[in-house]
Amino acid sequence: MIKIAILGLGTVGTGVVKVVEANTVPIQHKLGQPLSVKTALVRKLRADPYQHLMTENFREIEHDGEIRVVVETIGGVEAAYEYTRRCLMAGKHVVTANKQLVAEHGCELLELARKNHVNYLFEASVGGGIPVLHPLTQCMAANRVDEIYGILNGTTNFILTKMVKEGASFAEVLKLAQEKGYAEADPTADVEGIDAGRKICILADLAFGHQVDPAQVPMEGITGIDLKDVEIAGRHGYRIKLLGRCLRLEGGRRTAYVAPHLISEENPMSDVNDVFNAVVVRGNATGEVMFYGKGAGELPTASACVADVIECLQEERHRPEIGWSADTGGFASPLTLKNRWYFRVGTDTLSEALHSAKVLEQGTETAFITPSITGTDAERLAAYLPTLAKMRVLD
Amino acid sequence: MIKIAILGLGTVGTGVVKVVEANTVPIQHKLGQPLSVKTALVRKLRADPYQHLMTENFREIEHDGEIRVVVETIGGVEAAYEYTRRCLMAGKHVVTANKQLVAEHGCELLELARKNHVNYLFEASVGGGIPVLHPLTQCMAANRVDEIYGILNGTTNFILTKMVKEGASFAEVLKLAQEKGYAEADPTADVEGIDAGRKICILADLAFGHQVDPAQVPMEGITGIDLKDVEIAGRHGYRIKLLGRCLRLEGGRRTAYVAPHLISEENPMSDVNDVFNAVVVRGNATGEVMFYGKGAGELPTASACVADVIECLQEERHRPEIGWSADTGGFASPLTLKNRWYFRVGTDTLSEALHSAKVLEQGTETAFITPSITGTDAERLAAYLPTLAKMRVLD
Repeated sequence: MIKIAILGLGTVGTGVVKVVEANTVPIQHKLGQPLSVKTALVRKLRADPYQHLMTENFREIEHDGEIRVVVETIGGVEAAYEYTRRCLMAGKHVVTANKQLVAEHGCELLELARKNHVNYLFEASVGGGIPVLHPLTQCMAANRVDEIYGILNGTTNFILTKMVKEGASFAEVLKLAQEKGYAEADPTADVEGIDAGRKICILADLAFGHQVDPAQVPMEGITGIDLKDVEIAGRHGYRIKLLGRCLRLEGGRRTAYVAPHLISEENPMSDVNDVFNAVVVRGNATGEVMFYGKGAGELPTASACVADVIECLQEERHRPEIGWSADTGGFASPLTLKNRWYFRVGTDTLSEALHSAKVLEQGTETAFITPSITGTDAERLAAYLPTLAKMRVLD
Repeated sequence: MIKIAILGLGTVGTGVVKVVEANTVPIQHKLGQPLSVKTALVRKLRADPYQHLMTENFREIEHDGEIRVVVETIGGVEAAYEYTRRCLMAGKHVVTANKQLVAEHGCELLELARKNHVNYLFEASVGGGIPVLHPLTQCMAANRVDEIYGILNGTTNFILTKMVKEGASFAEVLKLAQEKGYAEADPTADVEGIDAGRKICILADLAFGHQVDPAQVPMEGITGIDLKDVEIAGRHGYRIKLLGRCLRLEGGRRTAYVAPHLISEENPMSDVNDVFNAVVVRGNATGEVMFYGKGAGELPTASACVADVIECLQEERHRPEIGWSADTGGFASPLTLKNRWYFRVGTDTLSEALHSAKVLEQGTETAFITPSITGTDAERLAAYLPTLAKMRVLD
């Protein structure tokens, strides 16, 4: 019998207990012996079906030699960071779904894990229950990864889907999402693209081997998206999706950003709706590979954590190929990237300088798509025209 | 420097040499040391950029203690089976893209590998460069897998896509596919569903832990698909796709089959076009997860082989969780499965017994969709009516 502990017994933490209990047979088949949750750290003991697992004292877990893996589901940075460090130093594997902690301190925590001959794994931090990080680092190991982009946040995708399907405004749908529990009371991290930004940082770290500092990554959310643009895009074969995107640039440099994009209906990603997520990885041998599924939720996320627990325990092997350099140098602004751009401007004519643009609709306002230009040129153009909306088109 | 050998220097074998040469940097990063191809077994020496690697003598590889991994890309069963056995017995890891060999002898070869403390890995046998088997066995290890379905054959998907987009008949498109090199001169294994059948057997073996004998699996291809049905489906929001599908049944039983299906346009799989593949895995915790990409081709398939090579070599670890029982008992016919069914019949009226069917189109012929009924009931209905076409609807 292998014993594990959970830090935090919220949605994901409780899900971990449930998955371990519900899937004893497949888990034991993989591990060769049964797995059980011994202890769960909570801030305050409470009446709960899992009350018998609870402790308020972190040291009980830290000093329990029987506990070989700790699942951190506290979230945020402060306590999660300290406890993760202490567990790793106590020689315990740590598994987490905490994207903020991994994006900000993953490199250092991986190094600490290595020094202590244990693993720090975080498959659940990106894409919830969708296998993404493991396939990226392991199955695509023979590729040079050149680009990753994805719908990385279920809340914003739910909102955008509703805007498209029901012609409702951002504010209306946000209210509905909050009522349904899909959006938090303070939705900032989701709707401003911060959550997606943390995830694209983790993907970029693993793909390119260098720390990408979340503070350097431009993050634009969906609060500025006008229903008008959703409708214009829809009439011309496009859907608007919030994408996180990172690319390998020439000379070993890299870039990453989060922003809404127009995606052609011919791209399978345009059909990724509601709270679903999808990640596309482009390798130089494999081409584009897409991973799709539920990006959040109690059981999907928890099952990814438990898979990492199993991974840690199988022959207690280490994952030497996971890790990246702490050097944040070589990060370039996405303004250097070329794309076609969608514009909507408050004028009924376009000057001759824009003769190569493809006009989508023209009335008192004009919606058009530019040829491929850099982000800098798009900003210049936006300053020059009475711009009401502008967005990259995913090519 | 780690040395490997390749058996067979056709498309995939040559691709392995190319991937190893092109991606030395990421591969060395993962392995901690460089990787190189030392020897390649060919039937007859020939002028070729890789002539310096060639040998006609298998024993040269078998007895070369420096070679730690052998990539088998011969295909078929006879020679591939014998050489694989001898390599495993010689203490060499074996990696393959050979779906026929894995579907028919995988269980036995995995057992032989275990006895010799080496790995037998075959990620490339399903989905080419798309990571599928590894995510299924590793990342979804905390799930009970209940169902897998997928577009598993690129040739037939190319043909179906062309039929939909260009309104061409099966025979016309097959000719084009052969000219383009997407279909072989003898296309039987592809168009009759046999290739997809081998792949769904491998997926079922891994998902359910029991050998699924390809001879037991009903395989229906696309040769019988009439353009008329493609068009009717298209007008009512469906696409026709050839799916391999396997399911866990009650009482520990399982089933698998290959057949064309109607898929709703709302399902992201309906947009999987041309030579692309996609596999959906349904786990009891994760829900549906989809893997999408190029299912074949020189470099994608080769890169999956090389990833398996890396996997074998990292700490020379074994994959104890891969494997299944040789017991083929408990396989049930898919006739017991319930689905809605699409029918086209040569009559302008439907009897009252069919009042619950949803009529799509009615003229001298009638196209309709039944409520959910078993395959057996669908066969009875087909015998009773002047049936021109019938297909499952993926629900």
